[in-house]
Amino acid sequence: MRDLNEENITDAVLERISHAPNRRIRKISEALVRHLHGFIREVEPTEAEWAAGIAFLTATGHRCSAARQEFILLSDTLGVSMLIDAINHRLPGAATETTVFGPFYVDAPEFAAGSDISGYSAGSPMYVSGTVRAVNGAPIGGATVDIWHSDRDGFYDLQRAQERPGTAGRGRFRTDAHGAFHLWTVRPSAYPIANDGPVGKMLAAQGRHPFRPEHIHFMIQASGYRKLVTHLFASGDPYLDSDVVFGVKTSLIRRYEEHLRGPAPGGRTMEGVWFSLEHDFVLAVEAAP
Amino acid sequence: MRDLNEENITDAVLERISHAPNRRIRKISEALVRHLHGFIREVEPTEAEWAAGIAFLTATGHRCSAARQEFILLSDTLGVSMLIDAINHRLPGAATETTVFGPFYVDAPEFAAGSDISGYSAGSPMYVSGTVRAVNGAPIGGATVDIWHSDRDGFYDLQRAQERPGTAGRGRFRTDAHGAFHLWTVRPSAYPIANDGPVGKMLAAQGRHPFRPEHIHFMIQASGYRKLVTHLFASGDPYLDSDVVFGVKTSLIRRYEEHLRGPAPGGRTMEGVWFSLEHDFVLAVEAAP
Repeated sequence: MRDLNEENITDAVLERISHAPNRRIRKISEALVRHLHGFIREVEPTEAEWAAGIAFLTATGHRCSAARQEFILLSDTLGVSMLIDAINHRLPGAATETTVFGPFYVDAPEFAAGSDISGYSAGSPMYVSGTVRAVNGAPIGGATVDIWHSDRDGFYDLQRAQERPGTAGRGRFRTDAHGAFHLWTVRPSAYPIANDGPVGKMLAAQGRHPFRPEHIHFMIQASGYRKLVTHLFASGDPYLDSDVVFGVKTSLIRRYEEHLRGPAPGGRTMEGVWFSLEHDFVLAVEAAP
Repeated sequence: MRDLNEENITDAVLERISHAPNRRIRKISEALVRHLHGFIREVEPTEAEWAAGIAFLTATGHRCSAARQEFILLSDTLGVSMLIDAINHRLPGAATETTVFGPFYVDAPEFAAGSDISGYSAGSPMYVSGTVRAVNGAPIGGATVDIWHSDRDGFYDLQRAQERPGTAGRGRFRTDAHGAFHLWTVRPSAYPIANDGPVGKMLAAQGRHPFRPEHIHFMIQASGYRKLVTHLFASGDPYLDSDVVFGVKTSLIRRYEEHLRGPAPGGRTMEGVWFSLEHDFVLAVEAAP
């Protein structure tokens, strides 16, 4: 295996990795080499461009920390995360559609039904409620509903962890015997993904804005059902057709209902404008292993 | 641009980046998306495999420092660096062949002809000499010849910088009017690339050894000629046919001649075994811009 050139080097690399003991690692490695070499052959990078690529990947890695995952941002903004999501969720039509997990989930405490999870976040009060059901319509009691969202300025609590300890806009609930859950929080907003790093530079170079439409994240789990990771997007948002991470599905766009001051769920009396969001989630049955 | 699925997401991403103002960035971005999505479609990663990929890239980035470039190691070990090298050096047949630059070059001081660059490195003395010529055989005077190599234990001075300041096994020379250069150093050795990081784990998972055959790096530059980056490999090395970075070319394999004690170039009298390596390098003319 000497004298490798443009014509024979790909086969030489494939031969070298053909002895990988694990069949899945072998398959992934072989596909990686073929597609990566195909990319290089198509664009014929100069040595300076190759060095710029190395520098981009290095800077992306250096930007990753406990509070930020720049490679997930890269995957999200190149449409890879949504492609992975689609491949892994070929669900029956009646099940709630999935979308990207995103980089902002962390384990959160469980709250009693009706609790307010807004924590230190300021913003317009918002009542979120719904049910969790099976495809046949049967309510699923005891399901866990994780919810997380940005504040009205577009920041998650994780992004404010250095200035403000504790959770805000994040919590776990459990559905009752009717499959229902409800809680109070504050309304989030559309926001730009963190764009002061390499991915932000890439978006600018590609002539793209960095915004996601306003949304709330949900992760719903129940024994015997497939885990559901999704969002509910706010209808009317100007970024619904240009989400920087390609995550919007029509079935996930919901009206964030506006209400004037007056009585509200849970015996509250509101002094000003507040919002409500309601949705019935449908879980697919766990596939047999 | 909503409701993206396995079938239409690639076109949606391509549409989004089709407005990149710079044509070259547009072309590279589009090819990247097509090949990356093609890779994902072929292997259909599970979400756990995608997360493992994110973790691998993150760890690779975190391993990059002033003294180590893990992404270059990744490029080298996947054959990408040699493919880039081949694409960028479609040279006339008579010119010396190129090979990988590697991660161990740094600017080094210029030495007078005949100097010993071994510095603090122990090892068998080695005399290196040669000429730099044009394709038509004309000697090239005033060319700079950068040379760098590992010590007898397989480490470059960069890798010992914390314990030993200064350069060792590294220097720059200038050819005389006859195109000639000569110097003393110590013989290097075959060595494993740094394999205590993510790339080392990848090689192990692919069932590959991490070794490069013994070699000395050369970078030769002269006005009006294309820069030459190459190695001279030691004949007889057991890794010539399995270089972990796919860099060996038959024309670059040379005998590292063994000599017994006695008189040696530069008026030296050697007390024990020493080696010599001689090679005539041929530069291609710089292409018109």
